[in-house]
Amino acid sequence: METGKLLTERVADEIVRNIIGKELKPGDKLPNEFELAAKLGVGRSTVREAIKTLVSRSVVEIRRGAGTFVSARSGVSEDPLGLQFLDDKVRVATDLLELRFVVEPRLASLAAGRSTPEQLDELMQLCDACEKKMLAGEDFSSENTAFHAAIARASGNIVVPNLAVILCGPPSMLPGMPSRQAREEMARTNREILTAIAAHDGMAAYDAMLLHLAQCRRSITEQSLK
Amino acid sequence: METGKLLTERVADEIVRNIIGKELKPGDKLPNEFELAAKLGVGRSTVREAIKTLVSRSVVEIRRGAGTFVSARSGVSEDPLGLQFLDDKVRVATDLLELRFVVEPRLASLAAGRSTPEQLDELMQLCDACEKKMLAGEDFSSENTAFHAAIARASGNIVVPNLAVILCGPPSMLPGMPSRQAREEMARTNREILTAIAAHDGMAAYDAMLLHLAQCRRSITEQSLK
Repeated sequence: METGKLLTERVADEIVRNIIGKELKPGDKLPNEFELAAKLGVGRSTVREAIKTLVSRSVVEIRRGAGTFVSARSGVSEDPLGLQFLDDKVRVATDLLELRFVVEPRLASLAAGRSTPEQLDELMQLCDACEKKMLAGEDFSSENTAFHAAIARASGNIVVPNLAVILCGPPSMLPGMPSRQAREEMARTNREILTAIAAHDGMAAYDAMLLHLAQCRRSITEQSLK
Repeated sequence: METGKLLTERVADEIVRNIIGKELKPGDKLPNEFELAAKLGVGRSTVREAIKTLVSRSVVEIRRGAGTFVSARSGVSEDPLGLQFLDDKVRVATDLLELRFVVEPRLASLAAGRSTPEQLDELMQLCDACEKKMLAGEDFSSENTAFHAAIARASGNIVVPNLAVILCGPPSMLPGMPSRQAREEMARTNREILTAIAAHDGMAAYDAMLLHLAQCRRSITEQSLK
């Protein structure tokens, strides 16, 4: 690593500490280049390089003509697991799902025990929005991801939400739409998960999530055979 | 995002596709700046910017005077879950461990069913190396991470290894060394995991991993009370 690189990295880390120290939230604006350079005692070109590094790390984003802002991704990069390096996309989809079988039933169970009334309200709205798209035969991937990510947040584990973005995130790497029957079944099991969480019934939430994932797996198999 | 940024990103993606297409492995050398610029039909400064982006994404690394090489991290960034943004380090350690309880017993069970003879050999060597450090009272975190990451690889799931690097990776965010009793118990349960995997006994591997993690949790509690 070149010396210049090291200085840039140090400045980038310093900016991250500033973001954390000032409790800046996603969407908050950072001080401009001049102010950062003065504050950190380095040149503007170093600040500019450091900001570029932080853009690559999904810590900040540049909005043209408006400035630099804290990214909504909170440092979770676009492809944190390096899945772009894995060639077999059907295998990736299958193995991601295998992992969701490991993780999500237990998260649903934790959510049943720990979710707050506000989180339950959010889950209801997201479940409704997702169901509507599923039954209308429209692309529901972002709504479904949002619902499952909210369940992960409701688990109360602070590491999990960022992980859930990864596991449920890639908006289906398979082309095509699940069959009508598959979509109805997914909507139904999503609703069962919600009901169990709302009833604080951890075991029922666990089972409903397993059912939902089994349905997803069947649907991936059907789609990959098309 | 500025226009210049977009070109850099496009060139970076093109370089990634080149790495995948040519099946370059970690440690392999990339063509130099001149060759890449000519091949991709862009200026050298753009290539240089793109390379910097890929360094930030942990896709490549620059070795001074030697060139640019494919990184061993395969695009898994230093902090893929954005844990640097989470303030309460004891809580992060506790919640990471909660997640390991969810994931690792099942991975051990999968490894018992799917591991190859070569993977078993590797597991034995790593278990020995880790045990030695544990019983000598030396820092064993990287050996322990290596053992658990190898179990994850032996699960046969292609997404999991990169995840395991994240979950088991941060070399204990807590200061201090576990007690002698804790270290002996961790060494013993690691050995039990290995024996169960070698016997292709999935349920015993599951149970031994649970025991190991319970021991880790107890040790974190002890250390955070110190």
